Amino acid sequence: MKVNGKHVRTVRFENGKCIMIEQNKLPFEFSWYVAETYKDSCHAIKTMIVRGAGAIGAVGAYAMAQAALEAPEGNYLEFIDAAKQTINNTRPTAQNLFYATEAVYQKAKKNRNDAVIEAERIADENAEEGRLIGEFGNQLIQSGMRIETHCNAGWLAFVDYGSALAPIYAAHDAGKNVFVYADETRPRAQGGRLTAWELHNHGVPHEIIPDNAGAYLMAQGNVDMMIVGADRIVANGDVANKIGTLEKAIAAKYYGVPFYVAAPCSTFDLNTVSGQDIPIEQRGAEEVMQQTGPDHNGEMHSITVNHPNSACINPAFDVTPAELIQGIITDKGIIQANEIAIKKLFTL
Amino acid sequence: MKVNGKHVRTVRFENGKCIMIEQNKLPFEFSWYVAETYKDSCHAIKTMIVRGAGAIGAVGAYAMAQAALEAPEGNYLEFIDAAKQTINNTRPTAQNLFYATEAVYQKAKKNRNDAVIEAERIADENAEEGRLIGEFGNQLIQSGMRIETHCNAGWLAFVDYGSALAPIYAAHDAGKNVFVYADETRPRAQGGRLTAWELHNHGVPHEIIPDNAGAYLMAQGNVDMMIVGADRIVANGDVANKIGTLEKAIAAKYYGVPFYVAAPCSTFDLNTVSGQDIPIEQRGAEEVMQQTGPDHNGEMHSITVNHPNSACINPAFDVTPAELIQGIITDKGIIQANEIAIKKLFTL
Repeated sequence: MKVNGKHVRTVRFENGKCIMIEQNKLPFEFSWYVAETYKDSCHAIKTMIVRGAGAIGAVGAYAMAQAALEAPEGNYLEFIDAAKQTINNTRPTAQNLFYATEAVYQKAKKNRNDAVIEAERIADENAEEGRLIGEFGNQLIQSGMRIETHCNAGWLAFVDYGSALAPIYAAHDAGKNVFVYADETRPRAQGGRLTAWELHNHGVPHEIIPDNAGAYLMAQGNVDMMIVGADRIVANGDVANKIGTLEKAIAAKYYGVPFYVAAPCSTFDLNTVSGQDIPIEQRGAEEVMQQTGPDHNGEMHSITVNHPNSACINPAFDVTPAELIQGIITDKGIIQANEIAIKKLFTL
Repeated sequence: MKVNGKHVRTVRFENGKCIMIEQNKLPFEFSWYVAETYKDSCHAIKTMIVRGAGAIGAVGAYAMAQAALEAPEGNYLEFIDAAKQTINNTRPTAQNLFYATEAVYQKAKKNRNDAVIEAERIADENAEEGRLIGEFGNQLIQSGMRIETHCNAGWLAFVDYGSALAPIYAAHDAGKNVFVYADETRPRAQGGRLTAWELHNHGVPHEIIPDNAGAYLMAQGNVDMMIVGADRIVANGDVANKIGTLEKAIAAKYYGVPFYVAAPCSTFDLNTVSGQDIPIEQRGAEEVMQQTGPDHNGEMHSITVNHPNSACINPAFDVTPAELIQGIITDKGIIQANEIAIKKLFTL
């Protein structure tokens, strides 16, 4: 997608370095983070320099390739074994990460070069998946629609195109008149910061809404469709995604607003039976208690935004049951959120 | 209620001055704002130095009394007429405000002194209503319950005790073991700032939760009951309250969590037939785009927290349909949220 008119990918690999957009600095500063080693790449995933299922997968793939390049001749296999573990431990919920490290690890066991080629293949595949999700999802969108989305499942969350935003970009590029309500998505405000920044850069009309205003807009008949991304989709069609997705899905059901999930096939985890089996990452309190941003002079500050002597919880994801989901937009077509449809998708 | 061990009321009247807690500075600084004139009191309502249905009502009553004290002999009636209009225009949604100004205005038409006495009566009545809501609501609470609340409907929102928090304080004071989940309540974070501060001061165990985590907690079976306040309850039982209340009520219904509204009788507006007729205040974008708080040195900053080049919406309230409400806890008892029960309440 484009930044300042120039085509960029969220993540790329150059001479053993994994180079990615520093997403913690967006939307206030556009810069690149260069991960020199696989441990730098792990740091980037952990601290959310890179975030979003697909982009994490690509960085995980590149990190595994970096580990293969860094592994000493003497204990090559032990090194890449341990590295795989370290990479997988950076974030517990994203299915794409485990898929990516496993694929590159299998090649790395043979030789370093194959690992790099496999990592590049995964990144290219991810971009192509986004393009296809956009193509399929665009079929659901009529001109004039107002679409709500949660968190950021745009191209920043992938290598390119995105998942939830891919159909919106495809519709917009096809000349359809689409309007997006971007949920702010506290505590990290990926919607208010990243989705809004992306949409602005691409010229898609949109408004940021406080997470609390979702049902209000639906009650007024102002939301024609919701599209969200997914961090993991399990065998029965339950979907783990950014905290707050569940609440929006329940509200959408109540108001009869079609609620779609968009995700590439690599997000599916057929080994997990139901959403109740998905481990939910609990993140630190500081994300809820502190916010960082520029003052009117552009100087960055971290400020306390809630009562500092109270405890708080910070679950990163929730699980939306399949019954609330109208359909899943994948890179192989749009399917229903149930076991039969998902099984069929993987036997195509 | 108590602050630093000393009993205080949120709002009081002394020698023609309306003295109130500066709620914009909480939870970081506890201080008093002194409104010397009725226009100062209007300023306090408009800028949310005072907020919350009951507290706004009390300040509105005192403001009307101030106007009577300030009115020149020559055009006394014109002055108090205009003042009433100005006071009512500060916030469009809170029913208590209109109730309070009307009551004091009727006395002011006779003489100044009666206006002051009536304003004091309204403030006392408000505190007593909170106490009674606590007494009735406490009957619903069993020891061990985990109660979620939205926004701040505690004693800061009233003259004393509060509405939604009054039953919790009553249960806590009666020795019951209660735990509160306080929704952060973006954009102004009245839950994370004010409710958390109140509960902390009173020693009630609690955690702040991002608004997005409400349904997540309910899905896990961690919420036994929700109690929220109300800015206006209309004839059919629909309830206007802080933005996000609707979404929580829908989620509570989906998970079978009893959803209660707590409010004094002065919050009822029997002249409005249904929630669709309640005007919803649209506030400025800066509340969503900016946040203010102290850095680690205690220095206050206003920072930008979302993409500054995007537009945003900021509706202050939403309307929860009566069908989602288990019951309304009033100062005259607990009633069902429907026309018959509400009519009966007012003919008691």
